[in-house]
Amino acid sequence: MTASRTDRVPLRNIKVNDRFWKRYADLVRETVIPYQWEALNDRIPGATPSYALHNFRLAAKQTEGEYRGHFFMDSDLAKWLEASSHSLATHPDPVLESHVEETVDLILKSQWEDGYVNTYFTMKEPAKRWTNLLDYHELYTAGHLFEAAVAYYEATGKRAFLDAMRKFADHIDSIFGTEPGKTKGYCGHQEIELALIKLYETTGDEKYARLSSMFIEQRGREPNFFIEEWEKREQSALWGRGTSRKPVLHYQQSHLPVREQKVAVGHAVRAVYMYAAMADLARLGEDESLSEACRTLWDNITTKQMYITGGIGSTHHGEAFTINFDLPNDTAYAETCASIGLIFFAERMLRLEARSEYANVMEKALYNVVLGSMSLDGMHYFYVNPLEVWPEACRHNPGKHHVKTERQKWFGCACCPPNVARLLSSLGQYIYSVNNRILYTHLYIGSETTISVEDEPVVIKQQSGLPWNGSVSLQVQIAEPKRFTLALRIPDWCFGKASFMLNGQSFEHEGSMTNGYMLVEREWADGDILEADFAMEPVWMLAHPNIRADSGKVALQRGPLVYCLEEADNGPALCSISVSPDRPLQARFEDDFLGGAVVITAEGRKDDAADWSGPEAYLPARKMSRPFTLRAVPYFLWGNRGAGEMTVWIRGE
Amino acid sequence: MTASRTDRVPLRNIKVNDRFWKRYADLVRETVIPYQWEALNDRIPGATPSYALHNFRLAAKQTEGEYRGHFFMDSDLAKWLEASSHSLATHPDPVLESHVEETVDLILKSQWEDGYVNTYFTMKEPAKRWTNLLDYHELYTAGHLFEAAVAYYEATGKRAFLDAMRKFADHIDSIFGTEPGKTKGYCGHQEIELALIKLYETTGDEKYARLSSMFIEQRGREPNFFIEEWEKREQSALWGRGTSRKPVLHYQQSHLPVREQKVAVGHAVRAVYMYAAMADLARLGEDESLSEACRTLWDNITTKQMYITGGIGSTHHGEAFTINFDLPNDTAYAETCASIGLIFFAERMLRLEARSEYANVMEKALYNVVLGSMSLDGMHYFYVNPLEVWPEACRHNPGKHHVKTERQKWFGCACCPPNVARLLSSLGQYIYSVNNRILYTHLYIGSETTISVEDEPVVIKQQSGLPWNGSVSLQVQIAEPKRFTLALRIPDWCFGKASFMLNGQSFEHEGSMTNGYMLVEREWADGDILEADFAMEPVWMLAHPNIRADSGKVALQRGPLVYCLEEADNGPALCSISVSPDRPLQARFEDDFLGGAVVITAEGRKDDAADWSGPEAYLPARKMSRPFTLRAVPYFLWGNRGAGEMTVWIRGE
Repeated sequence: MTASRTDRVPLRNIKVNDRFWKRYADLVRETVIPYQWEALNDRIPGATPSYALHNFRLAAKQTEGEYRGHFFMDSDLAKWLEASSHSLATHPDPVLESHVEETVDLILKSQWEDGYVNTYFTMKEPAKRWTNLLDYHELYTAGHLFEAAVAYYEATGKRAFLDAMRKFADHIDSIFGTEPGKTKGYCGHQEIELALIKLYETTGDEKYARLSSMFIEQRGREPNFFIEEWEKREQSALWGRGTSRKPVLHYQQSHLPVREQKVAVGHAVRAVYMYAAMADLARLGEDESLSEACRTLWDNITTKQMYITGGIGSTHHGEAFTINFDLPNDTAYAETCASIGLIFFAERMLRLEARSEYANVMEKALYNVVLGSMSLDGMHYFYVNPLEVWPEACRHNPGKHHVKTERQKWFGCACCPPNVARLLSSLGQYIYSVNNRILYTHLYIGSETTISVEDEPVVIKQQSGLPWNGSVSLQVQIAEPKRFTLALRIPDWCFGKASFMLNGQSFEHEGSMTNGYMLVEREWADGDILEADFAMEPVWMLAHPNIRADSGKVALQRGPLVYCLEEADNGPALCSISVSPDRPLQARFEDDFLGGAVVITAEGRKDDAADWSGPEAYLPARKMSRPFTLRAVPYFLWGNRGAGEMTVWIRGE
Repeated sequence: MTASRTDRVPLRNIKVNDRFWKRYADLVRETVIPYQWEALNDRIPGATPSYALHNFRLAAKQTEGEYRGHFFMDSDLAKWLEASSHSLATHPDPVLESHVEETVDLILKSQWEDGYVNTYFTMKEPAKRWTNLLDYHELYTAGHLFEAAVAYYEATGKRAFLDAMRKFADHIDSIFGTEPGKTKGYCGHQEIELALIKLYETTGDEKYARLSSMFIEQRGREPNFFIEEWEKREQSALWGRGTSRKPVLHYQQSHLPVREQKVAVGHAVRAVYMYAAMADLARLGEDESLSEACRTLWDNITTKQMYITGGIGSTHHGEAFTINFDLPNDTAYAETCASIGLIFFAERMLRLEARSEYANVMEKALYNVVLGSMSLDGMHYFYVNPLEVWPEACRHNPGKHHVKTERQKWFGCACCPPNVARLLSSLGQYIYSVNNRILYTHLYIGSETTISVEDEPVVIKQQSGLPWNGSVSLQVQIAEPKRFTLALRIPDWCFGKASFMLNGQSFEHEGSMTNGYMLVEREWADGDILEADFAMEPVWMLAHPNIRADSGKVALQRGPLVYCLEEADNGPALCSISVSPDRPLQARFEDDFLGGAVVITAEGRKDDAADWSGPEAYLPARKMSRPFTLRAVPYFLWGNRGAGEMTVWIRGE
């Protein structure tokens, strides 16, 4: 295992001050994190209780009672703790700090002598530890605790929690491995693999990277661990209480050794969490065959199994991938967590190799699915992110029951809201990466960041008009002039139309483009300003002809934002609207629309049910459309005006 | 209860000799009925066993063993027995007769002293009779036995089976009713209601019609019988073995008194079986408010919840109706039995009042869903009749697992195949009805039928070119000239383009049109010939703008047949094909295509995946279609050439 070639910028070195993102940063800090604390304490009236803190208080022997909720509830608290730690890294807050300390204290008090932490097993099945890795998420919740401990350590500098979690990791390392007497097992829900890499990168202890690698490399080998484990449990899911179906290995990506997996299958979140860890290991091990496996899976997802919004996992049955090009819009699952996992995967791929396709997808999933999953008040969430909604059908057709038409207060399985919080509170870390002497800019988010380039601190003050316009500028602040390369991603959505200025002088960029980045290598001096203007025109997009659900339809995109039609603007039966992609589009910023947004109007046509000449369901074809001005709004803002129809894909004429 | 105003023509008076239907009549007689006998005897290698005869042999104490299969398996045998009796009525067959006699003998031997017949309760739960009407289908299987007994009596003239089933019905009448000491209950799966009307019409005993009326009128009243029954069972489904969910009353249409039901809801087969009985009762009782309820439900189904093929019940969750205009094509359920039930409902509505809309729908469901549900070899069946199929997605997307891309040998719940057999073997009864002095022709099927008009026998020799051309002729054979009205349905598919000739002379039909029928009132003499030519042009059809799934699409129809595209003719990704409804269509009869059929070709366009310029899933809109000659085949013939894509709805340009 070689040393990490790229390092994440510590959060304390990043100040996000972007006009657009400030609203979300404030929301996460002032509303989302405090609201989720209430939710985790079961204090939100009318919301499904979490029981996460209740269970930790039991395990820490602070109260008495029954374990409640799903067996993986510890992970929700861990994700909240991670998000809160990220927040504290840049914004000290005594109240939040006290909640964080209380939580850490509970975790430490619930820890077993040997390092083990898991409130479900502690309270319900203490004798059954590590006997059902397939179903019971023990290593998964451990992974989230490790990520929380790393974030807490980075924010506070305090070691106790990190040390406790190292003890837990050491305990896991004593149980799992290829050495005689150890179990060659791995978790039914991947997560610990990427968490162990963070533990390694924070502590420098290679044992954790080796353990992560073991989990990844053993996965899917014959004889299959999950089948053997299931046989050992006498084919039961619940330790002898009735038999269970033979494990479906695709579901948790254990049907083949990971290097032989060419197509993304099974539960989407499990998949992308695993691929993220694979990309970490490929980078750390300079492992070309593992890198190639990652690229193959990335390509499969992003060119054949991803919605235009960056949503992945098209079926709610198993929250899973189905097959190439099977992307139905109205029964879509596209779980929020899956797109967050895709962002994790993208960020690791960028650390492995800077290619703009990774950042393009990262940006798409971030601006559309992740932002869209949360209401403007920060207190309501989508778990499922459909591209077409007909509220009445969602209520009455059981095949669409998973599609909610309004964001929910909380969920019985509440993985998504704290996942959004931890991503948004660490968003600054996704803007840049440094690879040798090249400082890559992946996301355009106004910020002030201190980055180490060849051990030299460089401050980049970024200003960005995204997502409403494509003007960005990067000002370099540096003690002494220094030769290095500043690289700007050319976003896919500008379709190559970009112009650049260096200290006010425009320059041609031919010859300095590499893998989708404009590379400017020079001796950078304090105060140098690199500006870019990326064309941001509204564009009608087509889907690949094999994507059956989108055939004959077009979707509107402007910059990183995908647009949609809503009933609130266009009336019901949105399917009646059609557009001709060669008609002009008008984009206009409306200050008073949901906090300010660019809205797009276009001349289209609409079939009018009033023109239907009788009660018949079917009549001979005739022209029955009339001119109609449609109004499209950013997809991430949908559903903030009550329940109504919504569609991303619009019939083309 | 007044006497029946219209009577069905006895099957022995009907000889179907139609060129098109002969293939199916022969198939049912020579293949379907014998094959299903083997299936009911569990002798089809590789097919799911039925256990129907096995269970009757146990109940009749001819063998020993365990009851097997679903608890409603008796009904499959009853439906086969009904079909076989229909067949014997017109085609004596000693081998079939011996199987029929064996079956009747088993049923009689399995009958309890008090008249009760049900092999499940006899073998498994003898003490639990009539304690779970909600779930256990006892009255449903009784109904099918009654229908079989009526058909057997009409075919053979033998009374023993009919008398035994009257004894069973008398037993049911002693248990259920509004009188003190009787149960005001009804079945969780409607069927007995329409069967009791048949029993009444065959025996003349009004008790059976009253019992049917009681079942219908009590349904959905407060306090709800199913809720009370469930409470009495201590909220269990299985008599105390664990609790069950509170009954969902919509599912079996017991959420409201039937006269207050305005929208078709719940399990589609249950619904239309019930509506058929309601129409019977409305006619017999000259009950205008019940007639109005039937019309309202008919209109709801046929104008808002029916596929263009005549399929109904759009979701596989509960095999049910969802909401108005929710008719997805690729996840359609459209169960074969539901369309058969719709035909039953239509036939009763025609007996109530001759309006062509009932016959139009009857014809549509018959030619498209019912015929399409069976393979050309008569030995493979569809339970589900989708309008769009992508085989790979059906295999790998669990939301489409119910959609089979090839007809199956048999089913664990094998309601559909014997239902098809009993409908097709009694098809002659759907051609005509007589209401007072008007002889209505509803279906155009070559046949020779002796019909009683005011107690005078009239023979109608019909010739028909359907479904391939619209020429029909009716020759009257009658002993003495007689004044009466001969009425011809003007099919909806000719869009008013029809011409008529009487004894070779054309005549105008203005003024003689009533409710979609051309009425010719005159003194009919022996040898008179009434001819009609209904225009049968291929027509592109549109769906109502509120049917989201079909927006922007067109479907091809010619005469009673709906057409579809198949991969075998048009290659994969059928969604890539588009057509302009104003381009000409060519229809041509192909002798060698699956036994001979009219195939339609049209000039359309196809997006070609080869023109897609890169690996991207989404690209800016551009013109990328090329001219393409599409070939459409009758929907009822789809899936006879191996698994492949199929679609009824085609993108309009």
